[in-house]
Order: sequence, then C-alpha cells, then structure tokens
Amino acid sequence: MKFNLRARIVSEFLGTALLVAAVVGSGIMGERLAAGNVAIALLANTIATGAALIALILTFGPISGAHFNPAVTLADAIEHGIPWAEVPVYIVAQCVGGVLGTILAHLMFGLRWYSLSSHVRSGWSLTLSEFIATFGLLSVIWGCSRTRSGATPFAVASYIVAAYWFTASTSFANPAVTIARALSDTFAGIRLADVPSFIAAQIAGALFATYLFAWLVPGLQKEAQEVVVPYHANDLRE
Amino acid sequence: MKFNLRARIVSEFLGTALLVAAVVGSGIMGERLAAGNVAIALLANTIATGAALIALILTFGPISGAHFNPAVTLADAIEHGIPWAEVPVYIVAQCVGGVLGTILAHLMFGLRWYSLSSHVRSGWSLTLSEFIATFGLLSVIWGCSRTRSGATPFAVASYIVAAYWFTASTSFANPAVTIARALSDTFAGIRLADVPSFIAAQIAGALFATYLFAWLVPGLQKEAQEVVVPYHANDLRE
Amino acid sequence: MKFNLRARIVSEFLGTALLVAAVVGSGIMGERLAAGNVAIALLANTIATGAALIALILTFGPISGAHFNPAVTLADAIEHGIPWAEVPVYIVAQCVGGVLGTILAHLMFGLRWYSLSSHVRSGWSLTLSEFIATFGLLSVIWGCSRTRSGATPFAVASYIVAAYWFTASTSFANPAVTIARALSDTFAGIRLADVPSFIAAQIAGALFATYLFAWLVPGLQKEAQEVVVPYHANDLRE
Amino acid sequence: MKFNLRARIVSEFLGTALLVAAVVGSGIMGERLAAGNVAIALLANTIATGAALIALILTFGPISGAHFNPAVTLADAIEHGIPWAEVPVYIVAQCVGGVLGTILAHLMFGLRWYSLSSHVRSGWSLTLSEFIATFGLLSVIWGCSRTRSGATPFAVASYIVAAYWFTASTSFANPAVTIARALSDTFAGIRLADVPSFIAAQIAGALFATYLFAWLVPGLQKEAQEVVVPYHANDLRE
Repeated sequence: MKFNLRARIVSEFLGTALLVAAVVGSGIMGERLAAGNVAIALLANTIATGAALIALILTFGPISGAHFNPAVTLADAIEHGIPWAEVPVYIVAQCVGGVLGTILAHLMFGLRWYSLSSHVRSGWSLTLSEFIATFGLLSVIWGCSRTRSGATPFAVASYIVAAYWFTASTSFANPAVTIARALSDTFAGIRLADVPSFIAAQIAGALFATYLFAWLVPGLQKEAQEVVVPYHANDLRE
Repeated sequence: MKFNLRARIVSEFLGTALLVAAVVGSGIMGERLAAGNVAIALLANTIATGAALIALILTFGPISGAHFNPAVTLADAIEHGIPWAEVPVYIVAQCVGGVLGTILAHLMFGLRWYSLSSHVRSGWSLTLSEFIATFGLLSVIWGCSRTRSGATPFAVASYIVAAYWFTASTSFANPAVTIARALSDTFAGIRLADVPSFIAAQIAGALFATYLFAWLVPGLQKEAQEVVVPYHANDLRE
Repeated sequence: MKFNLRARIVSEFLGTALLVAAVVGSGIMGERLAAGNVAIALLANTIATGAALIALILTFGPISGAHFNPAVTLADAIEHGIPWAEVPVYIVAQCVGGVLGTILAHLMFGLRWYSLSSHVRSGWSLTLSEFIATFGLLSVIWGCSRTRSGATPFAVASYIVAAYWFTASTSFANPAVTIARALSDTFAGIRLADVPSFIAAQIAGALFATYLFAWLVPGLQKEAQEVVVPYHANDLRE
Repeated sequence: MKFNLRARIVSEFLGTALLVAAVVGSGIMGERLAAGNVAIALLANTIATGAALIALILTFGPISGAHFNPAVTLADAIEHGIPWAEVPVYIVAQCVGGVLGTILAHLMFGLRWYSLSSHVRSGWSLTLSEFIATFGLLSVIWGCSRTRSGATPFAVASYIVAAYWFTASTSFANPAVTIARALSDTFAGIRLADVPSFIAAQIAGALFATYLFAWLVPGLQKEAQEVVVPYHANDLRE
C-alpha cells in the first residue's frame, strides 16, 4: 500500500517537528548542563540528533520516505521518486513542522515560544562546509538506499553524527531545519541573515551528489525509478 | 509458541527490574564520578539506559513483548494486542519489578535499600515534556513495529537516548519507572508529590499517539490486530 | 562446517586476548587523557569495550561461539551446547589469551609487561554487583540467542556497556578477564586478593540465569540443544 | 552487476576523501571545543570516525568494496578478491583521495590548505600498536566478511572505535590515511618522519592476519575466492 498524500504530509510534518525539537531541545539541555565546555554540549547534541534520526526514519520512513528535508525531496523528484506536483506540499509540511519543533522545544524548557537567533554563522568556510555536508548526506542516501535500503536509517544517522564534528558549520544540511533553527536564540540557533547562503550551499551540494550518483550507479537507475528512496517499504502493496 | 502468562509476567517483572536498576544505578555511578559536571553524568546515564533497552528488549521481547511500561501495555490493549484481562497483571509485574530494580541499585552501591527522593520535578513545562516524550515513544513503537518489527528494539532505545536530552524532564515516559524512581533519593529520583502529574501526562501522550497512528496507518490495522507489538516473534508458534 | 577444536581454541585465545587488550588498554588511555575526571575515563573505557565486543563477537562467533568467558562456557556445557570434555580446553585458552591481552596492552603503552594491581575491589556490595552483572549477561545470552541469534552480538555488547555503569563493580562478569585484570596495576586492575569472591559471584550469577531461563523458555529447550549459542552459524555445515 | 573500474576508482577516491575529512576535521573541531581536555577531544574524534565509517562503508561498499586502505587492498589481492593489476590504481585513488580529504578539512575550518605535522609519533611501542591495530582490523574483516557480510560495516567501524583507545597510537591502521594525516599540523597529524615505520607496521600486521585467517577458516577459502570482501553485493549481477 502506498500511503495517501494526507498521511504522508502528516508524516513529514510530524517527523520534522520531532527532529527539530530534538536538535534544538538537546542543544538547550546540553548548554545548560555542560558548565561551559562546548565540546560536551555538542557531544550531547550530536548523540541526541543521531539517535532521533534512527528512531524517526525507522518510524516515518515506511509512510512518507522520511525526507524531513527539502533538499532530499528535491533530489528525490529529480530521480523520479516523488512527483513534482507533490514537492511543494512536502516542503511546506517540512518547514511548518520544523518551526513547530522549535516552538515545542522552547515551551518544554520554559522559554518564550520563539526568539530570533543572534548566532553568527557566516563566511565562505561555513558555506563550503554546508556544501560538503549536504553533498555527503545525499551521497549516503543515494549510495546506500539503492543497494541496501534496510541499512539506510543507520547510515543517514551515522553520517550526520560524523558531520556535526567534521564540518565547521556542524552540518545543518537541511533547509527546513535551517529556517526552524533561525527562530531559536539558543545553542543550535543561526542568525536569520546567514540562512540564505546556508540554503544555497545545501541545495548545490544536494544537486552535485544527485547527478554524480546518477552517473556512478547507472545500472541501478531504472530500478531506482521504481523504488527510489527504497525505505518506502509499502510502495509495493498498492 | 505463545508463552504462557506466568512466563510473560516473569519476563515483564525481570525486564523492568533490570531496566530500573540500569537507570538508577548508572545515575548514581555517573553522579559519583562526574566531579560535578551534570552533563557528563547525564551522558553516562543516557548511554547506560539506551544500551540496557537494546539488550533487554532483544532478550525479553520474544517472551512478553518487552513492554516494561504500563503506558505501552495500555496502548497495546487498546489495539487488541493483549487481552484487557491481562493488563492489570502486566502492570503489577512492571511496578513491583521497577521497585525491586531501585532496591537492587541501592544495594549494589552500598546505599540504604530505599529513600524518598527530594528531587523536585514540577511545573507545566515538565508536564508538557512528559506528554511529548510519551507521545513520541508510542509513535515510534506503533510506526516502527507495524512495518519493520526487527528494528523496533533499536528504534525504541534510540528514541529514549534522544528524549533524555530533548525534553526538559529527561523523559521518564513510563509510569512504572516513575514510581520506582520516586523511591530513590539519587540522581534519577523524583519527588513523590510530582509523580501523579508525570503519570497523567504520560498516559495522555500515549493515548494521543495510539489514536493518531490508528488513523495514520489504517491499512495495517487488521494485520496489526494479529501481530500488534510485532516483536512477539513466537506468537506464531502456538 | 563445524570448526575443528584447534581452530576454535585459537579463536577463543585470540578473541579473549584482543578483548582484554581493549579493556586494559582503553583504561590506560582514558586515565592518561581524562585529566582526573574519572567519569570521562570510564566513558572512554565503556565505549571501547562495547565496540570491541561487537567487532570480536561478529568475527569469532561463527568459529568458536565467541565465549571469551569461562562462565559462558560453563553455562553452555550445562545446556549441552559444548561437550564437557572441551570445557577445560576452552577455559585454559580464555585465561591464557586474557593474560596475553594484558601484556600486549602494557607493551603498547610502554609499561612493564605485567604488574600486580593494587586496586581494592572488596565488600559485599561489589560481590552482589558481580552476581547481578553476570546473571544479567547470561540472561541476555540465553534470551536473545534462543530467539533471534543474529542480534546477539549487539545485545551482549549493549548489555556490558550498560553494566559498566549500573553495577558498582563496573561489571567484570568474566573469570578469565578478572584474572587478566589482576595482572595490571592500571585503571582496569583488580587486587589479586579480591579475585576469588568476584569469580564465585560470577559463577553463581551465571548458574542462576541458566537455570531460570531453562524454566522460562522451556519450549525452545530441545531446539536449543542443537543450536545452543546460536551464533555458531557454521554448525549446520558439518 | 560488477561496477566498472572507473566507477570503483571514483568510489575509493571519494570514500577515502570523506573518511580523511571526517578524521582530520573532527580532530580540529574536538580540539577547538574541548578546552584542553584531550580525552573529550579524542572521544569526539572517535565517535565521528566510527560513524563516518558506518556511513561510508554502507554507501561505497557495494560499488568498490570500500577498502579506503592500501593494506586492505593488498590483503584482498592476496586472497584473490581483486586482480593484482588493479591494486596500484586502487592505492593511488586512496592516497590522492586521502590528501584531498585533508585539504577539504583545512578549508572548511579556515586553515591553510596544508601544513606539515609536527606531531611526534615514534618509538617501538607505537610501532607495536600499529602492528596490532592493523592485525586486528584485518582479522575483523576476514572473520566477519566471510561468514556474515551484512554486519561487516558495523564490525569494522566498531573495531576502529575500540582501537582509537586501546592502542597507544590511536590506531591509524591505514597507509593512505597515515600519509594524508602527515599533511595536517592539527590534532590528528603525524610527523612525516614517523610515517614509514607506521606504514611498515601496518602492512606487517595486515599480512599476519591475512595468512592466519587463511589457515583458521580454510573451509571457506574456496567460497572466499569468489566473494572475498563480501559486501560487493553487486558482484553477482554482472
């Protein structure tokens, strides 16, 4: 059974909300408890984010593909995994869900429901970081999901855990999450003015990986047009 | 082979005892060694809890479903996974097992066998935290167990690891564990007076997720009535 | 193909050597780098031990069952998984391998090849800790390996990660490893005088779990007599 | 489908580049944030490296075998897994990719594109460490990939996580990565003068493990000649 659009939108909305709540909430908790040691705060933030990704991709993957990320939805459409007509709906669900996630995190920690971040994240080295971060993320998704889809949730979560530390930007790699984090003047925040260059770099990185893997794994291309993000386990039942 | 009720009760009893021993015991050890850095203590507590959940769900899941949690048992009964007549027995086994776990943790660390916690955990933001924590937990259980049951132990453990950090209450998400932790005046404790609001929020969150997923994944409903918490691998053998 | 006894002995010897090298070596490294914060040292020790267990059980499990532990070998013999005649050979291989592991760790870190530990670990609360630690370990092995053997390496490693923190003794749970750690006056060491009570508690805990699970999962008993430690994947090929 | 040589070279090049970027980049980030606590920096470095290995082996394994390591390529050729004629091409791709990874890490963190490391890593105890580290790595690869190939990515990543802590050299265990790290005067760097003895020890350890496992698991030898590094899942399709 392929899930109907309404169910899939709820899935993307809810999944992105919980993902952003995990990113922002664990950042607040980590900073509060770490007594000024940023490495320990980021370690907590990393472990919470990676663990949330495993749980949420396993939960919502069979319903909507568990994109939670406009860059992934865009790449999936390029590879014929999702009809172009559904792309805007997915992206709106992800962005609105992400903002709700920020609000929930604030309310859980007794903060005002939103705040504009003053966390400056600018400069070409951070832009390069976001390009590489998203290039790597889409490489993992395409490489892994085309040949061993069952392991994709673990591969994606592992990649983000690594990228939190090996990119200078802590790897946002997700336009919806970037927007949502601009509304939080906490550990995970990003100044609104820095959002556009982050998103541009993310989309460029996603496109580069998508076209590279279309060339690198051409023999699987046709198969991919049917399965695409292969953790749509239920696509077969329709 | 479906296990008989006596074996399943022992399984819930023993599993909850070991789970609470892991939560309370690692809290004591973490606090003792962390030299005042609460983030490091919570990190140790998180890793121990998540790892214990993987081991215990894999061990006891095939026998009793590895609920270890009255909110999960309640949700399972709503979805016809366990007969209502067995619900009270499961819940008693979980609560008694949880209390035994606290006692064992105290004895292993040379403390008096019980102590009433003075750890205040009150306020609406913590109540909201427990609601979201348990809503998320049941979402993961229903979403994941209905479509890829083999990964459920890892999804549940990962979710709790994340929720320890992204909720302000450190995600108790379990009435039996909440009661057991009230009897420990250590890192993981909770003041007895704060237990009722925690449990109310947990049950509300569990019910919300259960009804939401009954709507979200309706096509699997019938199938679910037979398998329900799908890691009852042995249900088929009866 | 069932591996011949010589290959299985080399497997137990080599696996236990690498396991002890990981436990002792990561203890030395953790203590050296942690600047006096014992929680951070134990966190490093925990992660290294858990990761080593995953790698080593996956590597040597198909050859010899990856016991690395006289208490496991004893329990396996009780359940007819290994002939009694092979038990002493397994145990000698494990003990000698463990001692070699300690020596290798010392040499890698530029220490004298052995040293008697002065680390006092005595008292009834530590004895209780070792009893519970080994009871839990064998519960995980029996519960998990009888019903989903493929996950056993992850269940065992996860259990030990948790038990490092929730028992006051940091969960040795292994007579061969206990002896080997007595020869290292470093972070992971144990005073020779405390070894006997640790080993007695470990064997008692292992026996209790073995007989409890023989009652708890009786329907699988016959099957178990053929497969026993079910990650002997190659037993079927002989 | 067996992937053609060009695709496999791109896979080895890209995978090694991302792996080294993860190792070097997370070292820089860890050291910057850890406020002088080397254990916390190494913990971050460890988690990022292990997570990167899981993601990258799952992604590139089906294409090129995900060696990322001349010592693995050499061992694979000895066991007839890859034709000798392709060995130099693989090794060049790995070394050039590794150097690119160092450069990318530097650029992401706003450093000059290369710098010669002044990090002294000499002495026989470090040489022994590299011998044991690479011996263990190849043992895990041969033992695990011959009998349960699906778990190999997790076994290899787990092994490296452990070996970062239990060897005194933090387990480079890879000639291409060793060369690439010589070009980075940061946390993960190694003085150029110490590279030759590291590489010699790595190759010796790899050869010892390869011949030992050729004896230890002889019954699988023939099968191995066909599959060799068994995560070449697509070899069957050609």
